[in-house]
Amino acid sequence: MIVVLKTGAPREGVTELTKYLEHFHVNVSPIEGTGTTILGLVGDTSSINPENILMYDVVERVMKVQEPYKRANRRFHPHDTQITLPGTDIVIGGKKIVVMAGPCSVESHEQIDTVAGAVHASGAEILRGGTYKPRSSPYSFQGLKDEGVAMLHAARDKYHMPIISEITGADHLPIYERDVDIIQVGARNMQNFELLRALGRSKKPILLKRGFANSIEELLMAAEYIMSEGNEQVMLCERGIRTFETATRNTLDISAVPVLKMHSHLPVIVDPSHAAGAYQLVPALAKAAVAAGADGLIIEVHPNPREALSDGAQSLTPHAFDKLMGELRPIAHAVGREL
Amino acid sequence: MIVVLKTGAPREGVTELTKYLEHFHVNVSPIEGTGTTILGLVGDTSSINPENILMYDVVERVMKVQEPYKRANRRFHPHDTQITLPGTDIVIGGKKIVVMAGPCSVESHEQIDTVAGAVHASGAEILRGGTYKPRSSPYSFQGLKDEGVAMLHAARDKYHMPIISEITGADHLPIYERDVDIIQVGARNMQNFELLRALGRSKKPILLKRGFANSIEELLMAAEYIMSEGNEQVMLCERGIRTFETATRNTLDISAVPVLKMHSHLPVIVDPSHAAGAYQLVPALAKAAVAAGADGLIIEVHPNPREALSDGAQSLTPHAFDKLMGELRPIAHAVGREL
Amino acid sequence: MIVVLKTGAPREGVTELTKYLEHFHVNVSPIEGTGTTILGLVGDTSSINPENILMYDVVERVMKVQEPYKRANRRFHPHDTQITLPGTDIVIGGKKIVVMAGPCSVESHEQIDTVAGAVHASGAEILRGGTYKPRSSPYSFQGLKDEGVAMLHAARDKYHMPIISEITGADHLPIYERDVDIIQVGARNMQNFELLRALGRSKKPILLKRGFANSIEELLMAAEYIMSEGNEQVMLCERGIRTFETATRNTLDISAVPVLKMHSHLPVIVDPSHAAGAYQLVPALAKAAVAAGADGLIIEVHPNPREALSDGAQSLTPHAFDKLMGELRPIAHAVGREL
Amino acid sequence: MIVVLKTGAPREGVTELTKYLEHFHVNVSPIEGTGTTILGLVGDTSSINPENILMYDVVERVMKVQEPYKRANRRFHPHDTQITLPGTDIVIGGKKIVVMAGPCSVESHEQIDTVAGAVHASGAEILRGGTYKPRSSPYSFQGLKDEGVAMLHAARDKYHMPIISEITGADHLPIYERDVDIIQVGARNMQNFELLRALGRSKKPILLKRGFANSIEELLMAAEYIMSEGNEQVMLCERGIRTFETATRNTLDISAVPVLKMHSHLPVIVDPSHAAGAYQLVPALAKAAVAAGADGLIIEVHPNPREALSDGAQSLTPHAFDKLMGELRPIAHAVGREL
Repeated sequence: MIVVLKTGAPREGVTELTKYLEHFHVNVSPIEGTGTTILGLVGDTSSINPENILMYDVVERVMKVQEPYKRANRRFHPHDTQITLPGTDIVIGGKKIVVMAGPCSVESHEQIDTVAGAVHASGAEILRGGTYKPRSSPYSFQGLKDEGVAMLHAARDKYHMPIISEITGADHLPIYERDVDIIQVGARNMQNFELLRALGRSKKPILLKRGFANSIEELLMAAEYIMSEGNEQVMLCERGIRTFETATRNTLDISAVPVLKMHSHLPVIVDPSHAAGAYQLVPALAKAAVAAGADGLIIEVHPNPREALSDGAQSLTPHAFDKLMGELRPIAHAVGREL
Repeated sequence: MIVVLKTGAPREGVTELTKYLEHFHVNVSPIEGTGTTILGLVGDTSSINPENILMYDVVERVMKVQEPYKRANRRFHPHDTQITLPGTDIVIGGKKIVVMAGPCSVESHEQIDTVAGAVHASGAEILRGGTYKPRSSPYSFQGLKDEGVAMLHAARDKYHMPIISEITGADHLPIYERDVDIIQVGARNMQNFELLRALGRSKKPILLKRGFANSIEELLMAAEYIMSEGNEQVMLCERGIRTFETATRNTLDISAVPVLKMHSHLPVIVDPSHAAGAYQLVPALAKAAVAAGADGLIIEVHPNPREALSDGAQSLTPHAFDKLMGELRPIAHAVGREL
Repeated sequence: MIVVLKTGAPREGVTELTKYLEHFHVNVSPIEGTGTTILGLVGDTSSINPENILMYDVVERVMKVQEPYKRANRRFHPHDTQITLPGTDIVIGGKKIVVMAGPCSVESHEQIDTVAGAVHASGAEILRGGTYKPRSSPYSFQGLKDEGVAMLHAARDKYHMPIISEITGADHLPIYERDVDIIQVGARNMQNFELLRALGRSKKPILLKRGFANSIEELLMAAEYIMSEGNEQVMLCERGIRTFETATRNTLDISAVPVLKMHSHLPVIVDPSHAAGAYQLVPALAKAAVAAGADGLIIEVHPNPREALSDGAQSLTPHAFDKLMGELRPIAHAVGREL
Repeated sequence: MIVVLKTGAPREGVTELTKYLEHFHVNVSPIEGTGTTILGLVGDTSSINPENILMYDVVERVMKVQEPYKRANRRFHPHDTQITLPGTDIVIGGKKIVVMAGPCSVESHEQIDTVAGAVHASGAEILRGGTYKPRSSPYSFQGLKDEGVAMLHAARDKYHMPIISEITGADHLPIYERDVDIIQVGARNMQNFELLRALGRSKKPILLKRGFANSIEELLMAAEYIMSEGNEQVMLCERGIRTFETATRNTLDISAVPVLKMHSHLPVIVDPSHAAGAYQLVPALAKAAVAAGADGLIIEVHPNPREALSDGAQSLTPHAFDKLMGELRPIAHAVGREL
């Protein structure tokens, strides 16, 4: 940690601050420049709150030197994390790019069965489907809830595909732990820390979506919440951030893929559907994600998007999804991966 | 709802779409322009999902005409909502601007007692204090939890000040309903819809903070979630949004005050502390909020910000708070209010 | 154009508005809904200013139905624009993806000669180099100006590579028209309308960079400024937008590629260097751009980035650039292109 | 400047970097921590480009300690700059808050005369009016140009009000220097560095508007461009930034007022009209600006906003402006100013 002092800070003030800092068992090394003096703090600064230092009159600015995340940090875990789904040979974070596909919402037995059969035939390995739906409006369809989980589970057994579904509260954890293979944390809950901590005590792999207004560092800190409770099977998911541009629902931050791979060892998944908000754009974004180094994709597919109860405009038809899978394969090979 | 058709859309496609739309018992009025045809939908369009319409090939764009919020909408409730705190003569949303003040976190009996005494003497009417703290890092102080609520409640009784505290999960609701006068929803939980719905079944007034990446319309939709369950005592709180500017922690969206007053009848509170992230800026933002028409302020005050366990840099000392209150009064009078 | 009237708008007010609108020789079709009435305007509405309509008391909202750009609009020009550089067989917007490479700033004869030789050998077809440099600080290196143009031109002749360089004011146009093959408009000048109009009267192809805070529609309107003066040889360049994320210098809006291709017939170029701001990220972004459908790339290469006078941190070495070109080719093939 | 080294950086690499840095005649002070070593650079680091340092393999991060602006910096010029308009007793940056008012565009002799008479009677001291209009669309009204300047000048003489108008290119400078009292740089030209430098050689006061996507630091650097050429009469103008919120045209960054006053000695003006984009919001924002400490306001007024050729929706009528002036006075007094 670096403390920049104000020009002409009085000696007594600096002494008072130095004493305060030394309470934390760090070494305080002053560097006297022309006009500016800085203090370098050496040692374990994790218990020092930079905000408190700012309250000393002699202080101009405080700068942190180290990333605040540890378990998610590639610096301390240089090797890529690979997550194997029990009872399968599916490995997330390995050479093969994993595709998760399915409808935004589970709507009926027939609907989820149709989609599951189709995406399975096209090469998707994991089935997605929402059952508890966080919707901006209380007047919109809110999901089939536990009944939906059961429908998803039936498709899981029929097609031998692991399933992923979003959890919206810690009290649903027992049913998710029993029936779901990967538990998804949605963008709106990325900083629902009570939920994160509960998931940290689960044994299930977690797919953690980036909040649409959260920085990459905050995403890694949210992963840290889960990991600090013991669950290290976390996938990070980029799904678009909120910007001034309105041509797309959100702006897919494609740079997040290489940035996350650089700073963390966790697998990185991209959701082109929510970023785009329009099915026409999904193929280009999916291709870009694979080319940029993503470890997986999560894509919305609906047998009849015109009748979808949610997110119809961004859903691919099974036919369009099949075509996309065919287009993604050569790109995966071009970057040394499989799909 | 307006549906803009593609140039040269074939007649059969338009007929198919019109039939689909008429299922919803709306009247479909076509307006044929040169090059563009639009369909005006007349009737109750609330059950039509614009996303589904977009999936018809003949459709270029769909535009909504009416705001999606009803109970929070001034159009249907022209008079200002006023919230009276039981057992007091405090009215939020009336002529008097209400000031809520206190520390970010309740840290000890002594700390909260000192602050409460000080802010009460300066004219604050409501005492704030955090006990369940949502923090970006799992390694930061997480609050005193129920013990903190008890400390806050003791100060409440001693100084006869109603208290406000943030709730982070629906399972804490019983203790908040018993001990807290106003329940606060933090920015990170503004779209935690399960929590909002639970609060909608409470009898307590709710202070709903705008998420730092949520639009004004989304804030009103979040209020709608609470109100649609029966609890109409909602205050809206602007506390800064996330932008590219890094000179402040967040960018206080001062325009949200007149925009919210125009579109909604609910009281509007401003939190200058979280927006600024720096105590030096709090007075200017508090003054701006009063001048812009806010019904209340929520301000962080700590007896010794250098030792604060959270948010020290943005906390005022009791002395600075007292000075600010003196400066706010003439501004309140200048805009025809009291404080 | 659609005019939404206020609930309960008095008949006289609506009549007054209708008369006003009919001055513009449009047909005004009212659609009476329950609660809301809308007016559909049929005919040429381009001379009606929506802002003026908003001033009528009876009006709630005005919505535009058509995009405001014409010449840049694919609706009116369905075929892709291809730009052939005179005296070469280089076609921008065709099957082959065109790579432009070179240093941020031309620094010396030797520097530009070294880079030109290297990028040419690696397969770049166009040489880039800045000579008039818009820098945030007046104390930073401002470019070699006309002397730099001459150095760039010498390399052009030696390696038979067309050159591209940024123009910062219309008064430099004569020298750019004489010596430069493609004139670049930088992000900061995207809405320097006097410059755009001057370039519209030039015969040279223009590469128009998106301002870092400009929407895709504004980029197309800036192209429209150039095209409306007669110069239709415009390339659109995505180079990152400003968002809250600070892990990259800007956020590459990869979705802009398919969005621009959908709405416009102009070639789309991506600049991964300025978006990233860090050389480590450039390869991933370049690959993503090719996969997403870009027609070209513009990449910064410097023989010795440590000594670069500007943008060192985002420049590739010739060796890294050569490696990247090798990696891009199979991706180009995978999406049916060449490189 | 602080250089953070990578964990385990080899000694030779550090030695090489240190030698490079010492070329710039700075002292390099290493501080060895557990895990991390940082180098503190003492001396004049202004000629060191942080980007180049980043290219050394041993470097993790570079952090600047000092603000890059000097002449605009309050640290070096603690007293407020006051700008006196020649031949008048108008002082910008003094106790009196200065109001500039007038139409977006000068449209006719009669129009500007009407507005000038009205705003003068209401207490505005400076007349604004646009004559060269930067418009997003080439098909919109582009201003009366020099003819408009002449109309503005006639109103100036009749009402003895200094005038302010926007310049869009350095070639118009002669006429602006002759006829205009304050030259305005619009938001889109805030980083048109050629224009800024030309204005730096003028003797006229400059009102510099913040670009809608520029940080406060960039605004101060733009002021630095003007000041570094010799013209120190610069006013800084906050007019709203671009964010995700669409309820207003831009988001007025009210915090910019106290932040600019803290870091700079230059006067701060607020433009509530462009930020709001809607006349209904202008009064609340104008009041907030005065309460927050602004030295002046620039407000759009049009005799008949329904017929305005530009920005009608955000223009006040003379009557509404007069009412606002009456409401602003007590707020100015409440914050110890006059108006």
